[in-house]
Amino acid sequence: MPKKASFIVTPWEVKGEVDYEKLIREFGTTGITDDLIDRLAKHTGDIHPLLRRKVFFSHRDLDWILDKYEAGEKFFLYTGRGPSGHTHLGHLVPWFFTQWLQEKFGAELYFQMTDDEKFLHNPGLTLKDTVGYTYENALDIIACGFDPEKTFIFSDIEYSKTLYQIAVKVAKHITFSTVKAVFGFENSTNIGMAFFPAIQAVPCFLPSVLKGRNIPCLIPAAIDQDPYWRGVARAIAPKLGFYKPAQIHSKFIPGLGKGGKMSASEPETAIFTVDTPKTAHDKIMNSFTGGRATVQEQREKGGTPDICPVYHYYTVFLKDDKEVEEVYRRCKSGDLLCGEDKLRLSEVVKNFLKEHQRKREEAKKVLEKFMLRD
Amino acid sequence: MPKKASFIVTPWEVKGEVDYEKLIREFGTTGITDDLIDRLAKHTGDIHPLLRRKVFFSHRDLDWILDKYEAGEKFFLYTGRGPSGHTHLGHLVPWFFTQWLQEKFGAELYFQMTDDEKFLHNPGLTLKDTVGYTYENALDIIACGFDPEKTFIFSDIEYSKTLYQIAVKVAKHITFSTVKAVFGFENSTNIGMAFFPAIQAVPCFLPSVLKGRNIPCLIPAAIDQDPYWRGVARAIAPKLGFYKPAQIHSKFIPGLGKGGKMSASEPETAIFTVDTPKTAHDKIMNSFTGGRATVQEQREKGGTPDICPVYHYYTVFLKDDKEVEEVYRRCKSGDLLCGEDKLRLSEVVKNFLKEHQRKREEAKKVLEKFMLRD
Repeated sequence: MPKKASFIVTPWEVKGEVDYEKLIREFGTTGITDDLIDRLAKHTGDIHPLLRRKVFFSHRDLDWILDKYEAGEKFFLYTGRGPSGHTHLGHLVPWFFTQWLQEKFGAELYFQMTDDEKFLHNPGLTLKDTVGYTYENALDIIACGFDPEKTFIFSDIEYSKTLYQIAVKVAKHITFSTVKAVFGFENSTNIGMAFFPAIQAVPCFLPSVLKGRNIPCLIPAAIDQDPYWRGVARAIAPKLGFYKPAQIHSKFIPGLGKGGKMSASEPETAIFTVDTPKTAHDKIMNSFTGGRATVQEQREKGGTPDICPVYHYYTVFLKDDKEVEEVYRRCKSGDLLCGEDKLRLSEVVKNFLKEHQRKREEAKKVLEKFMLRD
Repeated sequence: MPKKASFIVTPWEVKGEVDYEKLIREFGTTGITDDLIDRLAKHTGDIHPLLRRKVFFSHRDLDWILDKYEAGEKFFLYTGRGPSGHTHLGHLVPWFFTQWLQEKFGAELYFQMTDDEKFLHNPGLTLKDTVGYTYENALDIIACGFDPEKTFIFSDIEYSKTLYQIAVKVAKHITFSTVKAVFGFENSTNIGMAFFPAIQAVPCFLPSVLKGRNIPCLIPAAIDQDPYWRGVARAIAPKLGFYKPAQIHSKFIPGLGKGGKMSASEPETAIFTVDTPKTAHDKIMNSFTGGRATVQEQREKGGTPDICPVYHYYTVFLKDDKEVEEVYRRCKSGDLLCGEDKLRLSEVVKNFLKEHQRKREEAKKVLEKFMLRD
């Protein structure tokens, strides 16, 4: 697997490495260097495949987080989920990584379920729908292996007493102009959405408020979320006397269709954690690929794994680098045809789903232990 | 006391009757007619002086509230207070009237303390300040004689779990354009204030949500609040399946200075419920009046009680119409000089304060019984 190709994760960003570097420059974030990975490895022992494969590729203040950690000041993790439907495999990728960070650093995790925002944003969803999905999605989170002693999942709606009291302190420092600029809101935006960025910023400071001391925060999230943290939470943290939250940014996991990330709004392009083996298999077999128009052309010119969702699934679900490299090489050379490739992925995904669904069922017994409520 | 003069309550609105009628036309509200007062009296027996003296002078759907009541459907009362400081006598006036409505109609009262809004709006106030004033002000509310079984006082901050869950349903239907138009918000307005109109609308529907059935709501409040209810709560009520809240509107109680309502931001013009007898006395003796420049001129031309705060205090604190009329007549004729007038008011107010402060102290024992929390 050539180094350059490893930067290409989304099929619609063919330029790969170049574009992501441009993103880093535009957002003003910092690429994760090999030195920084080595420094992480001193604490973690091994390096998670998603970091090794540069799915997590950019950061803000991750070095500062390590400074603090090495000086004896532990950080907590904050990530979130908008519960507008069932969890799909794309959602799980950063959760796998977050679970690894929790395990290696013994970090507490605050997991925000933004059922308020999904209700406010989506005309077709009731509050009952989104709160319901909070609990469905929480099962998938728990199935990722988070520590029940150190993981606090909360519904914005059900934890709103605590959240609102902190959110008004955030909101006092954020004008409508700011959220227009940062989130693209307009005068036609409803006032619930206008306020929501304050609710979203709260978990950056929540453990500090709950424990009465300033605690560093690390947010693992996709790179497109960066402007939100920069424009709101990082901007107002000093005004409230808190540390600015640090971030570690991932690329996207592509959907099975052409040209878009996996999306719950196009169910045929996303494999849901509640899908049956047959449904998952059918979706994979119907997937867009980086293959050629004919078998003969593929044998001659080889496939283009860099734009192929099937290949990218291997980068997420195969733990062994050599196996991933083998798929890449065989595809590129024309040795591996899409049919064989998809059949194998189907087996990998079905095995994953079987195990995940078992853990998801187990999670129902311990769900309450994870939930934070007023 | 001539009928026309009774419409003049605020010293800075000298045209009195004409202006208030203009307000009714501009806002599209309805004046309270003698017929409507007679209809109320069928249920209440007597008529409260503030209604008789037309301090409460306008309404929306009060006739509909009586239709419902007569058909066996009881209404609840909703009013509020922005706890940005201590209670002054001007605040108490609508509370006296609300207490009377509660007693006569056996109505439940939901009393919203907008400590979130006062914090968000005022750069100089902390959340601790405004929540603190919620409890200080609640003592004054209780001292007005509300029924502990039927009165629910709540801090927006401390009842925010329940409020937020309903507020998002309201907020989903209100755009930033709307709150710009109704409240005069701008892009520089903070997003907490932008959201607050949703929180303020919630109590209109709260008992209906809590009890699972549609219950009519009557809001006693100053006339300047009308656009808020019209633009938000009344506009979205049908979308959420609730009755539109009805309203009964009052004029203002003037401050002791010239040209403004009693304001906590000008402490020398307002008598606070926690003022000592001496402080109250000094404020009254230093009050602006409708008197002439010299005693001789006053004896010759008479005073102008219509623009005199001292006179207006009598209309609120003297129960006997004859006594109020006597003050008006003697002032107008030049028989009553301002010094005597103020000395008498000082006695009336000091007596009131003594009794109120006793009840306020008693209220501390029962405060918890009145407070609604998550």
